[in-house]
Amino acid sequence: MKPKISIITLGVSNLSESVACYRDGLGLPAPNYSDGDGICFLELEGTWLSLYPRDHFPIEADVPFADPSGGTPTVTLAHNLPSREAVDAAMAEAVAAGATLVKQPEDVFWGGYSGYFADPDGYLWELAHNPFTDLT
Amino acid sequence: MKPKISIITLGVSNLSESVACYRDGLGLPAPNYSDGDGICFLELEGTWLSLYPRDHFPIEADVPFADPSGGTPTVTLAHNLPSREAVDAAMAEAVAAGATLVKQPEDVFWGGYSGYFADPDGYLWELAHNPFTDLT
Repeated sequence: MKPKISIITLGVSNLSESVACYRDGLGLPAPNYSDGDGICFLELEGTWLSLYPRDHFPIEADVPFADPSGGTPTVTLAHNLPSREAVDAAMAEAVAAGATLVKQPEDVFWGGYSGYFADPDGYLWELAHNPFTDLT
Repeated sequence: MKPKISIITLGVSNLSESVACYRDGLGLPAPNYSDGDGICFLELEGTWLSLYPRDHFPIEADVPFADPSGGTPTVTLAHNLPSREAVDAAMAEAVAAGATLVKQPEDVFWGGYSGYFADPDGYLWELAHNPFTDLT
């Protein structure tokens, strides 16, 4: 796969408080975030940082998932790809590399195509095709 | 601060196994890693990914630190800066933004200058000046 992390997502306990710290306090750009949105993308150079309510993680990943500390996963790394077929190919590559399939890629609620694998320590990677925003 | 994450570090339980997955299996570039090294930098486009033995995290951050799950922190994000003075200024900015000072910036064992703050959820950010490699 192309050597790039598209997005790092932090599971946060209070989205408004986190936005206040990162966007308002540190000045990181979130040009497409509005109050009340369910997720905040900080559109950084290179790799984006997203802030996502921690209690939504199980919904996103769709299956029970044990993170390295034994709790709900609170960090994910996303690798975006230019097509659904490229997502499937990257997932096959990851599994061949020793990663664990967590969620078979499928059409997802936000309009893209996405699946998850876990690395040897259980860190969760999303492989995604986003037809709206090119982060590949 | 400049809107960029320089490095994301995963705390791993077995460095060799993780290198086998990421470098050998997924083909991510680690041109400066040699067997026996204590850390592996995957030199990605945008944000680098580093693999670091989990049991070394307390040594790196230098102080007891409670991560969001209550255990040893196993993920850090690094933001690199062009000078020691810029590290100090960014730390002051972070604290003013509501972050918590975890480790005052100081000269560190690898030859740079670095400190840590925690965001509202306890996620650990390193602010660092690296005189050897420019990731700013």
